[in-house]
This record gives sequence, C-alpha cells and structure tokens, in this order.
Amino acid sequence: MTTIDSIEVRLFHIPLAEVLVDAKHGDHHFFELVTATVRLTDGSEGTGYTYTGGKGGHAIAAMIEHDLAPFLTGKNPADVEDLYDAMQWHVHYVGRGGIASFAISAVDIALWDLRGKRTGQPLWQMAGGAGRTCRAYCGGIDLGFSLPKLLDSVRGYLSRGFDGVKIKIGQPTLAEDVERIAAVRDLIGPDVAFMVDANYSMTVDEAIAAAQAFAPYDLLWFEEPTIPDDYAGYARIAEATGMPLAMGENLHTIHEFGYAFDQAKLSYIQPDASNCGGITGWLQVAELSQAHSIPACSHGMQELHVSLVSARSNAGWIEVHSFPIDTYTMRPLVVENARAIAPDTPGIGVAFDWAKLDAANILGR
Amino acid sequence: MTTIDSIEVRLFHIPLAEVLVDAKHGDHHFFELVTATVRLTDGSEGTGYTYTGGKGGHAIAAMIEHDLAPFLTGKNPADVEDLYDAMQWHVHYVGRGGIASFAISAVDIALWDLRGKRTGQPLWQMAGGAGRTCRAYCGGIDLGFSLPKLLDSVRGYLSRGFDGVKIKIGQPTLAEDVERIAAVRDLIGPDVAFMVDANYSMTVDEAIAAAQAFAPYDLLWFEEPTIPDDYAGYARIAEATGMPLAMGENLHTIHEFGYAFDQAKLSYIQPDASNCGGITGWLQVAELSQAHSIPACSHGMQELHVSLVSARSNAGWIEVHSFPIDTYTMRPLVVENARAIAPDTPGIGVAFDWAKLDAANILGR
Ligand SMILES: [Mg+2]
Ligand SMILES: [Mg+2]
Repeated sequence: MTTIDSIEVRLFHIPLAEVLVDAKHGDHHFFELVTATVRLTDGSEGTGYTYTGGKGGHAIAAMIEHDLAPFLTGKNPADVEDLYDAMQWHVHYVGRGGIASFAISAVDIALWDLRGKRTGQPLWQMAGGAGRTCRAYCGGIDLGFSLPKLLDSVRGYLSRGFDGVKIKIGQPTLAEDVERIAAVRDLIGPDVAFMVDANYSMTVDEAIAAAQAFAPYDLLWFEEPTIPDDYAGYARIAEATGMPLAMGENLHTIHEFGYAFDQAKLSYIQPDASNCGGITGWLQVAELSQAHSIPACSHGMQELHVSLVSARSNAGWIEVHSFPIDTYTMRPLVVENARAIAPDTPGIGVAFDWAKLDAANILGR
Repeated sequence: MTTIDSIEVRLFHIPLAEVLVDAKHGDHHFFELVTATVRLTDGSEGTGYTYTGGKGGHAIAAMIEHDLAPFLTGKNPADVEDLYDAMQWHVHYVGRGGIASFAISAVDIALWDLRGKRTGQPLWQMAGGAGRTCRAYCGGIDLGFSLPKLLDSVRGYLSRGFDGVKIKIGQPTLAEDVERIAAVRDLIGPDVAFMVDANYSMTVDEAIAAAQAFAPYDLLWFEEPTIPDDYAGYARIAEATGMPLAMGENLHTIHEFGYAFDQAKLSYIQPDASNCGGITGWLQVAELSQAHSIPACSHGMQELHVSLVSARSNAGWIEVHSFPIDTYTMRPLVVENARAIAPDTPGIGVAFDWAKLDAANILGR
C-alpha cells in the first residue's frame, strides 16, 4: 500500500508593497505563507498551505513538523476525511481552533491535492461539481488609505473586471465611515455589489448605529461588525437594523460555525479553508450553510476558494484578497465576464512558483 | 523606566514512569513543559510556564519566541492586565484559544511572578487573599490500570493524606466503569470525596445513562462527560440526571467560559491557568464563577493553582495531577490535614530545579 512518507514544511514571509491597516489587526508589513508538501512512498506529492497576517507562522510550521507529520507518516493518504478527524483529536488538547486549525488546514489541502492528482479530478469537481465559475469581489486592507487613494483602489478593482467591491470601515468617527461609503457608492453606481468590513471593531450598539447610518447605500453585507464570539450580538444587530451580516474568517471549528448558523442570523457565511480545517473543514461548513439556506462565500485564498465556492449549489461570492499571492503561483486568478474561473487541472489547481518564493523562505529549507 | 528586555523560552519533555491512558487523548509517554523567563532591563526576572500532554510544545515555544517576545520587548512589565489584553489582540487572527492560549498563559504567569517579586507579595495574596489553604484531590490518568492496580493507586492517594480521589472512566462497557466506581467507593468509604472523569468521550445520551448508573456511589462530580463545545448537551445531562457536572480544562477563552456558565448548568468549573490565559485569565474566570455562585476549582498545575484557588472566597478543589512536576520544582506540594498549602514567598511560589530539568531540555538552550 502507498502510504505517507514525509511532510515538508516551508515558511515564507511575503512582502507587501506598502503597510496595510485594518480596524483590529494593526499594521500588516508582510503576510506569512506556510506550505506543507506531503510525499508518498510511491514518490508522488501534493502541496497544501495556509496563510496568516504576519503572526503565528512559526507556530503553525512547528505543529505540522513536530505533531502532525510524525502522526501521519505511514498512514493511507486516501483516507482524507478520516485523517482529518484523527488530526483534530490528536492535537485536541492544544487545539479546538487557533494554530491547530491552520496547521491541519495546510496538511488537509495537501491530501486533497494528492486525491485530485491520483484520481485525475480538479478541485471544483471533487468539491461538489455544481459549477466551475463564481461571483467574485475585490477587498482591500484599506482603512489607512486617504479617500482619494481609496477611490483609486476601487477604480482599480472595476478596471480588472470585477463587479463587487469591499472596503474596510472603522474610522475614528462614524461620519467618516459614512462619507467614504457614500463616495464609493457614488463612484461605482447602483449596479456594483458593495460590502463593508469592520473587522469586529465595534460593540453591538455601535454596530447597530453604523448599520442604520449605512442603510441608504445598498450594502450587500456588513462584515464582522462585532467580535466573532458574540453570536447573539450578531442577531441583535440583524434584528435591529435588517442589515445583512457576514462573518466566518475567524471561526475555526465546526462547533463555532454551528453556533453561528443557529444563533447569529447571518445572511452570508465566509469560511476560510486556510483556517477552518482545509478543504474537509470548508466542505463541512458548506454543507451546514446549505442546510441553513445561507450562501457559502469565502475569505482570502481566492486561488483555492474559486474552486470550492464554484462547486457548491449555494455558491455566494469569493473575496479576492489584496495579499499578492498571484505573484507566487503558476496560475493567477482568472476572471471573465466578472466571474472567477476555477482551474481545471487535477488536484487543487494551485501550484507555487518555488523559485520566486525561495527569496522569501525564512526557514531556509 | 524598567522595561521588558527579553523572554527566554525553554521546552522540556518530562518522562513519565509508565505510559498513561485516558479515554480521549490516547497514550501519554511524556509531558511537555514550556517555560518563559521574562527578563527586565534592571536585571530582575520572572518565570512562567505551561504544560501539554505531549503535543503542541514546539508550537507554543515558537509563538512565544517569534510572536509574543518581540511584541513585549520594551513594554512596562507592571501593566500585566493591559499586556494580557494586548497579547490576545496581537495574535487574535491565529488565536481565540488553542496554542495562543497556552503561549499567553506562560508569559502572563511570568509577569505575575515579576509583579509578586517586585511588590513582595505571594500569589495567594495577589489573587484575592481569602485564604492560604484549599481542598485537594488526587486524580490519575488511570484508564488503562487493572482494577487491583487502580485500587492500589487510590490507596496511595489516601496514604499521602488526601481526602478526595478521582478516576478516569470510559471502559469498553458501562458495566466495567460501574464495577470500578463501586470498588473505589467501597475502598475509600463514605467520607472521602470521589469524582470521575470521562474526558468527553461520551455522547450526551451515553453520559445520561452513565450518570444514572453512577447515582448510587455519591459522586462529588462527573467531569467532562461530553465534548466541551456542547454547552446545551451538558445542561441536558444535568437536568436529566441531577448529577453534578464539572469541566473547564478544555475551555480557553473567556467567551467559552461565559457560554459554559450561562448554558451548561455546571456545578463546578475547572479553569487551568496553563491554558486559559495564565493568572490573568484564571482570575477572570474565577470572577465569573463567583457571579454564578459556582466553586472555582482547577485542572492540573497544582503547584500554582494551590495559590489561586486558596485565594478565592468561592474556592473549590484543586486537582493534584499525576504528572511528576514535584520532582522538578524546589517546593513539592505541601498538604497538611488534607488541605493543600500555598507557598508564602514573593512571586508565584513555583521555582524550577533547572539542573534536573536540563536533562530533559529538548530545545537545547
Ligand atoms: Mg474580513
Ligand atoms: Mg479532566
């Protein structure tokens, strides 16, 4: 039987062209990419990965190397879902979210890459096969941008062919947020989808006031108005204002998603396969979202999520994140007629340009 | 101003005399101890620490070294609670529990060690000062023990002067668990407190059946009958059986504890300062437990928790864990008249025997 022979971990610090700011995570000087390459005894290999905004990469790499790799060596790589469960229980005492979710995600995605390569299937087929394209919007970490720069950034999204845009909110005053929202809506016109993202910087009462002030601008959703832990707080905001709410990038376990679906009165869910358990974890959330009639969207990692969201019959929108990952992969995101198109090659369809990444490889291996 | 100059991290694999088993974490061959020594610009230092059952230690050490230490350097060590909040937000995207909770715990405990040394106060005073002694029970990772060996182990607890004992449950059949419980109660008589711990290995329905079968044996509590995420499931067990329930060792954020207090109908709470945010995190949980009239107990780390539990007016019991930490500290746990006695020296009162630990130092520094 072909079994798992080894897992190679690499950690990269990818520079950003400028320091980016949101309402709650402070300054982003670089982002971290952690890759996990699973090699089998027959010589084949698959690569998965995860991201961070600049913290935790060393811990993720350490968990893959010291806890997950020794545990998986010798096991059957075809048992992807069983290995997912086994990894969760293996690190449960130090897990239930956090770093463990990121580490498991990277390994799980590598196992799906192997599954696709070994069976000849692209990810969009493996993940459900409902379609190969999906809606996509651009979002920037643009809280620190001046209004003219913000509008230039939004013009850039439209010129790249997108019909949805998202901006960060959380300026010192609500009036400033409203001013920026009004200016963006004025720029994009009534037909482009428009979302805002507070990165959970508001109290519930602040978010209610904000949602009421944003009402004239036809927002598709208000993302992470308050902390992800406060499911009932989300429901209060939704009930008090009728504003559609979205979250998910900070939920890491199926239990957290379950509580969110049951209690938070969300209109959209945004699981991120890089931090909610990889493709296995993302698909579990997508199944739950279907049962709750909520569109499955995504956070970040557009090069992978394009396949996952497209594959689902309750597909929502993928976020096209501003981290410059396209520079380091062999297939930059393809967008035609304002829809993102999933890769059709066996495996996850994301191959890294290792030569370019090597310049950023801070583990030196 | 005196500021934080550096944080030294050490990782130890502490051998166990034999392989220990519980219902959900598999075999324990060793435990991990991660220490964080915070040095100030005036040359003074404090040491904090955390544990694991054998996984995650490298990731915890990596997060302290790469994410927390650079962030804290240059800051005022006296602002313990502010630094706690700042650390939580600093790693929030990869945090909200998991490895981040363990890493922050170790650093926070070091800051409390410094606070005590700089102000001349022992931990039991800093943590509330209600008392210097508390009730204590012994618990083993004894699921794999034969019944004669289990009873020998319990006799050992009594001979060491304890008046409370806890055993693991989760045998292949409920009848076997009941047989062991009956034998232990028979051995210890009616006056010794007796708890059982399923390490969340049961479904809610299984736990209800188990609690009903355990009813004749006067258990003080039934610990972690089911997964820690299922607050409503705990409430169902409590309501269906009247059995007092305890949990907390797998809750890592104040939000999780909040949900447990509000929804799980617990009779005891068992926060662990090594994984719920150190002393700052433990005290936040203790405040909440007081507001809910639930005794504050603890999980593991008895050498530290003796000070925290004793200090609280709603003190419950400390667990005296079977990991052999007493071999590696300068003050083995003191028990007199069946009560554990907190150290009275400035700081946290836990000093490691570095020479003995050095033999187990796997980071080699
Ligand atoms: Mg967001
Ligand atoms: Mg326990």
